[in-house]
Amino acid sequence: MFNLKAYLAEKKETVNASLNERMDGIVADSRIVEAMRYSLNAGGKRIRPILSIAAAESVGGKESDVRHTACAIEMIHTYSLIHDDLPAMDNDDLRRGQPTSHVQFDEATAILAGDALLTLAFETLSSQPAVAHKDTSPAIVLDVIHILATAAGCRGMIDGQMLDILSEGQEITLSELETIHRLKTGALMEASIHAGALLGHGDAAQIEKLRTYGKHIGLAFQVMDDILNVKGDPSLMGKAVGSDARRGKITYPALIGLKRSEDFASHLVQSGLQAIQGFDTKADPLRAIGNYIFERKS
Amino acid sequence: MFNLKAYLAEKKETVNASLNERMDGIVADSRIVEAMRYSLNAGGKRIRPILSIAAAESVGGKESDVRHTACAIEMIHTYSLIHDDLPAMDNDDLRRGQPTSHVQFDEATAILAGDALLTLAFETLSSQPAVAHKDTSPAIVLDVIHILATAAGCRGMIDGQMLDILSEGQEITLSELETIHRLKTGALMEASIHAGALLGHGDAAQIEKLRTYGKHIGLAFQVMDDILNVKGDPSLMGKAVGSDARRGKITYPALIGLKRSEDFASHLVQSGLQAIQGFDTKADPLRAIGNYIFERKS
Repeated sequence: MFNLKAYLAEKKETVNASLNERMDGIVADSRIVEAMRYSLNAGGKRIRPILSIAAAESVGGKESDVRHTACAIEMIHTYSLIHDDLPAMDNDDLRRGQPTSHVQFDEATAILAGDALLTLAFETLSSQPAVAHKDTSPAIVLDVIHILATAAGCRGMIDGQMLDILSEGQEITLSELETIHRLKTGALMEASIHAGALLGHGDAAQIEKLRTYGKHIGLAFQVMDDILNVKGDPSLMGKAVGSDARRGKITYPALIGLKRSEDFASHLVQSGLQAIQGFDTKADPLRAIGNYIFERKS
Repeated sequence: MFNLKAYLAEKKETVNASLNERMDGIVADSRIVEAMRYSLNAGGKRIRPILSIAAAESVGGKESDVRHTACAIEMIHTYSLIHDDLPAMDNDDLRRGQPTSHVQFDEATAILAGDALLTLAFETLSSQPAVAHKDTSPAIVLDVIHILATAAGCRGMIDGQMLDILSEGQEITLSELETIHRLKTGALMEASIHAGALLGHGDAAQIEKLRTYGKHIGLAFQVMDDILNVKGDPSLMGKAVGSDARRGKITYPALIGLKRSEDFASHLVQSGLQAIQGFDTKADPLRAIGNYIFERKS
């Protein structure tokens, strides 16, 4: 019987240890490094790097093959949160129950800390294969960098954030909302899984199926985020409930109601699980994470 | 007789053509892409990518070996300008005589356009070697990514910008000022030359000498920037003269006077040229650029 709670705790520990090791390797003891550490240690679930590791393991790869990439993925995610929270963007004072970077430090430091985490992600990804990717050819590492940069960039996550900001207070259609969610959240989640599958040496058919899984659960994750913003427990969420509505952000519940939103998320998770139904028990973590995404409370 | 003006014009054209080609390859016609193009096309001198190409050529490499990297370097530089100009940072309305990104668009768009250019730089660098780096092994491309990410990150350019902001209105020593200038400007210039030398297949001794050249002329470039901020022609500079002093920024002229600053810049350029004195005529562009950095008017 697969124990998801233990699995998530163990992998989170792996990711945190790798992140700490990486940051400890940066000798500079500067304000910028302090701000980077602050946001990295603000208590994230590490769901993206865990998905990357789980994808590698689902095709027979080893956790060690993907540790560096897992770190880099969490750095990219953390940078995006710091910048999204800025006054010029979502203007959030709290994130996971703690002051956001620009509140804890100041705006300039927050902008630079985000920039620095994004840059450190690519520095980490490009660490020499001999050290960082013992079983991985440099060509595969380049592929991984390209996949993550594309997903995080102007045709992926950043375009999603831009469209999200532009949509505030506007009427948008369900299809436009889906595009925003797929870009803003789905792209990096799919890329995390894609990178893990490559580093785990999955074959082309396996990689394709894992990407399909990633596409579906990536969108499901953001739909559930919308739902939790309406009905979540603020003490678990670490931020105010109802903030999307107050800000004039269109969400799935706002467009199609809570019940249909939940049905849609459930449908997406089932489609995701279906894509990997031919995988053996090594994909059980991915299956359990799919269900967890639908059932999560925060 | 080497003609620097023609060389700079030709290489600038190469860099601009590569940047346009890269941006045209991005099909998305979005606000974020528009903002990226706006800043890329704001009329920079392209000095960093030209240095990278000139370094490759100085050791017998071909321009085509370094075109992708040259694009990426200019994207990193452009992102850093967009973010440095933000209200929370240097709060500049004009850059090269044109409205800065947050004035032309808005703050959120400017932050995201910077993020997107930084990300696109790494997407560009990691383009498959078969396409982008015909004569270059993936391992060398990874090295180049690592060198640029390290120089642009929290122990390089970003730390320099952080220290620069923290130093505003403070008393700082000459040695602290040198550190800021080396980090903020020198690190990426040296890395551009280092990357070019690697992609041009220079040997270890050549690379070491080119890095020494880069270290010296990188610092000289920023010292001359300080000097031009005091005595430059605003119509050539595209920004107000004296802005550093008004902002309480410590500069070389403020600390040691104009004359000694000019002597220091001249000394740095000479040291840089000395490092590559054993190179043949293929290094003439680097020699001429060294002198140009000292003599430039904008």
